[in-house]
Amino acid sequence: MKQTPRRIKLGLMLQGAGGFMNAWRHHRVPVDASVNVSWYRQLARQAEEAGLDFLFVADGLHINEKSLPHFLNRFEPLALLSSLTAVTQRIGLAGTISTSYSDPFTVARQLASLDLLSNGRAGWNVVTSPLAGSARNFGREHPEHGQRYQIAGEYIEVVQGLWDSWEEDAFIRDRQSGVFFDANKLHKLNHQGEHFTVEGPLNIQRSAQGQPVIFQAGASESGIRLAAASADAVFTNARTLEEAQHYATRLQQEAQMAGRQPPGIFPGINPIIGATLAEAEEKYQYLLSLLSLEQALDYLGRFFDHHDFSQYDPDGPFPDLGELGQNSFRSTTDQVKRQATEENLTLREAAYRTALPKGDFFGTPQQVAETLIRWVEQGAASGFILCGPVLNEALEDITRLVLPILEARGYWYQDDRSTLRERLEIPVRPNRYTQARSRLQQAERSAC
Amino acid sequence: MKQTPRRIKLGLMLQGAGGFMNAWRHHRVPVDASVNVSWYRQLARQAEEAGLDFLFVADGLHINEKSLPHFLNRFEPLALLSSLTAVTQRIGLAGTISTSYSDPFTVARQLASLDLLSNGRAGWNVVTSPLAGSARNFGREHPEHGQRYQIAGEYIEVVQGLWDSWEEDAFIRDRQSGVFFDANKLHKLNHQGEHFTVEGPLNIQRSAQGQPVIFQAGASESGIRLAAASADAVFTNARTLEEAQHYATRLQQEAQMAGRQPPGIFPGINPIIGATLAEAEEKYQYLLSLLSLEQALDYLGRFFDHHDFSQYDPDGPFPDLGELGQNSFRSTTDQVKRQATEENLTLREAAYRTALPKGDFFGTPQQVAETLIRWVEQGAASGFILCGPVLNEALEDITRLVLPILEARGYWYQDDRSTLRERLEIPVRPNRYTQARSRLQQAERSAC
Repeated sequence: MKQTPRRIKLGLMLQGAGGFMNAWRHHRVPVDASVNVSWYRQLARQAEEAGLDFLFVADGLHINEKSLPHFLNRFEPLALLSSLTAVTQRIGLAGTISTSYSDPFTVARQLASLDLLSNGRAGWNVVTSPLAGSARNFGREHPEHGQRYQIAGEYIEVVQGLWDSWEEDAFIRDRQSGVFFDANKLHKLNHQGEHFTVEGPLNIQRSAQGQPVIFQAGASESGIRLAAASADAVFTNARTLEEAQHYATRLQQEAQMAGRQPPGIFPGINPIIGATLAEAEEKYQYLLSLLSLEQALDYLGRFFDHHDFSQYDPDGPFPDLGELGQNSFRSTTDQVKRQATEENLTLREAAYRTALPKGDFFGTPQQVAETLIRWVEQGAASGFILCGPVLNEALEDITRLVLPILEARGYWYQDDRSTLRERLEIPVRPNRYTQARSRLQQAERSAC
Repeated sequence: MKQTPRRIKLGLMLQGAGGFMNAWRHHRVPVDASVNVSWYRQLARQAEEAGLDFLFVADGLHINEKSLPHFLNRFEPLALLSSLTAVTQRIGLAGTISTSYSDPFTVARQLASLDLLSNGRAGWNVVTSPLAGSARNFGREHPEHGQRYQIAGEYIEVVQGLWDSWEEDAFIRDRQSGVFFDANKLHKLNHQGEHFTVEGPLNIQRSAQGQPVIFQAGASESGIRLAAASADAVFTNARTLEEAQHYATRLQQEAQMAGRQPPGIFPGINPIIGATLAEAEEKYQYLLSLLSLEQALDYLGRFFDHHDFSQYDPDGPFPDLGELGQNSFRSTTDQVKRQATEENLTLREAAYRTALPKGDFFGTPQQVAETLIRWVEQGAASGFILCGPVLNEALEDITRLVLPILEARGYWYQDDRSTLRERLEIPVRPNRYTQARSRLQQAERSAC
């Protein structure tokens, strides 16, 4: 049965010149894109103008000399997003903050501030920091995977609890009488958990959307469980429709077990769009020309425990690696090996294909639009986050070429609502104390 | 010997409606000033237009139902200042962050981000969080006073070390060759101290002013020593010229012992200015009318270990309190007692005088200008931070009535330089590795 078309939601990932590791060399982007204020402001304005729903800022807490260009030198997400509150009006502002290396009281305040500064447009992408090196920047032990997710679960609980410190109508602010607030509507949290002890109250009120939207990005089993239990939306990295559907099913199951609506799913995409297939191929080849063989092989090695691929003939067949690659990147390494065998790729071809996949979103505007619709119709996505490969080009192509097709098909229209919850159709979380009071009053009324 | 006039530097404290506890009731300010984005944007633009040097955001990490209105509900400083980067161009952006309840890696990143987003206008007001209640929001013990300052000293060292991670010319960004950076100009900090272990490097480059300016606000002996050893500027609360001079002398002594130039001194001021003295008095009486006797007595009690002053006849003489008040507010409590005796004040008068002192900056524009000049000439200040009592009124009065007098006397002109260091005449901190390399090269040259 064909579903009724629903508006596809769209985010834009602000990450340097774009998701492609050498996007900074593209002739149309500033070489310092990852720390270029004007670049981000312009993208933010363009995205809002085009009607996109939110901006999304990723993050990382550890670099070394091998890190990708846009990781080496970038703005901290909260600072960047706060700076964009003044140049935008309706677009959401979501940013990544780690629950493994921060304090819930401070993070609750900073996000609530962003939410109030933006008039209800803040989102928090909860991550647990996978890189063990992060720990060395914070003088702590790196918690193991499962524990990181337990910490994250409790952390979100604390932050959402602090966000309930002030009821909606707690501030009276009557100039005449001098009454500033109602002390009955100010609440301490008094949280005492396994990982956190936080008294509260928080020193900032609710925003136009009540509380910031919670994003989550973990694809592991623990990540899916956390998302199902706590998130309003998830950012995923699915490369194929099948992968995306599998993830959606798992998330749905876990949400059902947690007694919640499943969060909206937002796969990151790197479309390469040309008026014709030949034009798309031309763009693809131009991007490949920005990447040296050495870089492509080095990048490939990252997925295979930093294996040195430069020892092989690049134009020979993809080498037999045996067990190598059975690590945390296994879904990628399996795919690389399978593709190399099936399509008889040389090492050079496999390396370039890994560094810059063509993927499902390569082709003409019509093809890309069809794919976006198919993913949504098949229940694999509520929307997408545009990650690159090169941000300004991808945003222009989507806006100019793809959105008109989606609009004609009923999957797109300009939504001028201004809180992030409204745009993503996520209900406001009522304040827990207000809710309890209103339940009590209802009970009293029905007892009469 | 008369000194040559030097430009007086001016900051504006963004703190709700202003430093006066009931400023929110003033008919010319929005009742929600402390979380009103438009209010802050407008003050920021007006201050920049008037040629002020910086905005300054205070902070606190603990509230309860007794807290002052502008503390109960306010923006976190980093978020607020970042949001102001987009609506200002030249004015400095300084904010308070506690070294007792945060991580140096995150704080270094956020401040460096603010500095880069604002093109070299960031300042950090280092505080150690006096309120023990803060600890309960972070699930830790509250370090005792001396230890807090030791932690702060090491913390600043770590942050400044992280800010040196990338040398000035580390980023090559050659589109043609594909070389993004020079790995020789990227440095790990590898700090292992008593309180912090931080590896680095930081994932963000230097700004137009190299590193953010360090403010410090502690007036205790430990505070003065920390300021002398680490700060570029200090924010003080001196009420009289004598107090300010005494502080300046102590700071100078400590700076000399630390082998540094003494930091610039910025007393916070709450001027009440009228075209005539009668007009100033009228303003003062209007402000007093916004404060109930109950609030004034309660406020007075805060300095005397929450003593209940409502038990006395408000129109009787100031009560004999014996030892009460020999606490950490002693300089205030001594002054209250002395003034009450000397001027034969009733309790009511003493309470109102404490909640809203007239102070040294009460009077006609000519008188206030003379006082500002006197403080600077007597070495008690390099400039001032305008704190209230009501921000928009004080800013307008200073701009419209006082600055022209200062200008005519040679103590003021519009400075259009755009980094905070330039405006405050604080030299750029050279990158330690660049400096070491250049010393080595010099030594090699002279050895030839």
